[in-house]
Amino acid sequence: MTRPGGRSARVRDAVHEAVVELLAAGEIDAAIPKIAERAGVNPTSIYRRWGSRDHLLLDAAVTRLRAKSPIPDTGSLRDDLLGWAEGVERSMRDRRGQILLRALVATMAPDEEPVEYLRARGDDLQNALDRAAARGEPVPTVDEVLDFVLAPLYLRVLFRRPVEPGTAARLVGRLLTALPADPAPRAGRGG
Amino acid sequence: MTRPGGRSARVRDAVHEAVVELLAAGEIDAAIPKIAERAGVNPTSIYRRWGSRDHLLLDAAVTRLRAKSPIPDTGSLRDDLLGWAEGVERSMRDRRGQILLRALVATMAPDEEPVEYLRARGDDLQNALDRAAARGEPVPTVDEVLDFVLAPLYLRVLFRRPVEPGTAARLVGRLLTALPADPAPRAGRGG
Repeated sequence: MTRPGGRSARVRDAVHEAVVELLAAGEIDAAIPKIAERAGVNPTSIYRRWGSRDHLLLDAAVTRLRAKSPIPDTGSLRDDLLGWAEGVERSMRDRRGQILLRALVATMAPDEEPVEYLRARGDDLQNALDRAAARGEPVPTVDEVLDFVLAPLYLRVLFRRPVEPGTAARLVGRLLTALPADPAPRAGRGG
Repeated sequence: MTRPGGRSARVRDAVHEAVVELLAAGEIDAAIPKIAERAGVNPTSIYRRWGSRDHLLLDAAVTRLRAKSPIPDTGSLRDDLLGWAEGVERSMRDRRGQILLRALVATMAPDEEPVEYLRARGDDLQNALDRAAARGEPVPTVDEVLDFVLAPLYLRVLFRRPVEPGTAARLVGRLLTALPADPAPRAGRGG
């Protein structure tokens, strides 16, 4: 994926970086003017683009977490999933990754409508699964990948349990072992 | 487990109830005097017993979530786990359960030392696993139960995805299918 250039992308990067820096410094409640000051942009640009601090925070967390664990196209589902899951594991062993995940979860207000915050990652995963299915490999559903791999990694961080090296590989192994050998088409993105 | 009676337990229940009510009303930031007022107790009792609002909130969340999904002793590991996991599922389909889980996660401050918040639940699970092992059944580790069953249920709530009926039964089925048939002793509570 190429990064779109130009001023707009630079502003976005600078603002995201400012959010991450402030969160890492413990300034969880930093308001938009403070974020703008740190990013060297006008607060108006932030209000116009993101609308609210929570939307900005969500965008920054999803963008950063996703960038840290791209899904490679290796020609093998196992290696695609390993490459991705090991990126997630690294990110979850890193203090900033942990802070972003916690910020992501904390920002979803209690009575908000359900929103597909995992949609972007789900789309990336679906592409990798579609490639494997086209090669005739047995494939899990996106929900199975989230249940078997992402949920255990994220829960360790959210409950402050250690993420041991090798966790991602073990979780991907479990997922693939659980697959039926028959590569019959399966339901897409069930509940 | 019998509930210890007496004034101390009544105060604890009243204070927990006040915390849950205030959280459910959206008063996430309710301070101790407000909680005390609602519970009809002296704020000093709360400070003396819990020390801080965060410790109180954690205690209330862990106690309530645990009480909603006790682990039965049915004589079969599958039924013990199903009884427990279906309790967790019900609790995660309920707005108060969702609020308590989110409060639990939010209350763990970013730079706190790792603490075993899941310890109480882990102990309950270990007891059920020990009973099954004594009967000669193949048993998972506590970590496997958390990975296969609790993490996917909790992650759905934290990311606002729906918890479909039957999710708990499907997750327990996956866990037991993944077990080796050989009931050899396995590592206890690995990473």
